[in-house]
Amino acid sequence: MKDQNCIFCKIANGEIPSRTLYEDERYRVILDLGPATKGHALVLPKEHFANIYEIPAEWAAGAMEIGQKMAILMKERLHTDGANLVQNNGETAGQTVHHFHLHIIPRYKNDGQRILWKPGKATDEELDAIVSAMK
Amino acid sequence: MKDQNCIFCKIANGEIPSRTLYEDERYRVILDLGPATKGHALVLPKEHFANIYEIPAEWAAGAMEIGQKMAILMKERLHTDGANLVQNNGETAGQTVHHFHLHIIPRYKNDGQRILWKPGKATDEELDAIVSAMK
Repeated sequence: MKDQNCIFCKIANGEIPSRTLYEDERYRVILDLGPATKGHALVLPKEHFANIYEIPAEWAAGAMEIGQKMAILMKERLHTDGANLVQNNGETAGQTVHHFHLHIIPRYKNDGQRILWKPGKATDEELDAIVSAMK
Repeated sequence: MKDQNCIFCKIANGEIPSRTLYEDERYRVILDLGPATKGHALVLPKEHFANIYEIPAEWAAGAMEIGQKMAILMKERLHTDGANLVQNNGETAGQTVHHFHLHIIPRYKNDGQRILWKPGKATDEELDAIVSAMK
């Protein structure tokens, strides 16, 4: 299903043009227009799923496989030093377009980005409580 | 294959104890001991693959499926507001342990984390050059 009001549905299905790095029946990979680094790309499913909570497992897995292909190709063609694969869900997590997408952010030495978190602390009791809650 | 010198091989295979949220034949999901947020977990394959460049596609896809299961369960059990799924490759990208792992970082309103990048700019010519290089 497509969502008529979703810009990523339109882009993934070619109704809005994009700079496409890869396309198959299920996915399109496009360049991000506000790139974190040179080659920053997005893996978009052609069907509409808002996020990781809605997408079928098979489609989430497939997006990762395409992301891997892209990261490997970027290493060869763009001479990258690494990559961050990032998939954000919910506004709290920084998701701005509510159509599942996987960021492939190639990394280069001294590229000026820092895509990390502040490490926190947790007590043994707090960690045990999480294990219990997840059982 | 396991790597005798890899701490994540030892943890994934139970030679070093960990707080485990999930385990099957191929993967173990553990709590991160320096959590970005409450419930921050890592999906670890039990075999040793350094990163996205080395891991077989099927194993990368499988890690995403497990990550999805965890994110969904966290939403229910930990009442999360979202999640970042992050997979880092290479020291430049912030990878500190060279055994493929997928971070599941649950998010909560006002959790004080910001796991994003600085958006950049690229000219049409620069974007076209990337499309050409990736063909």
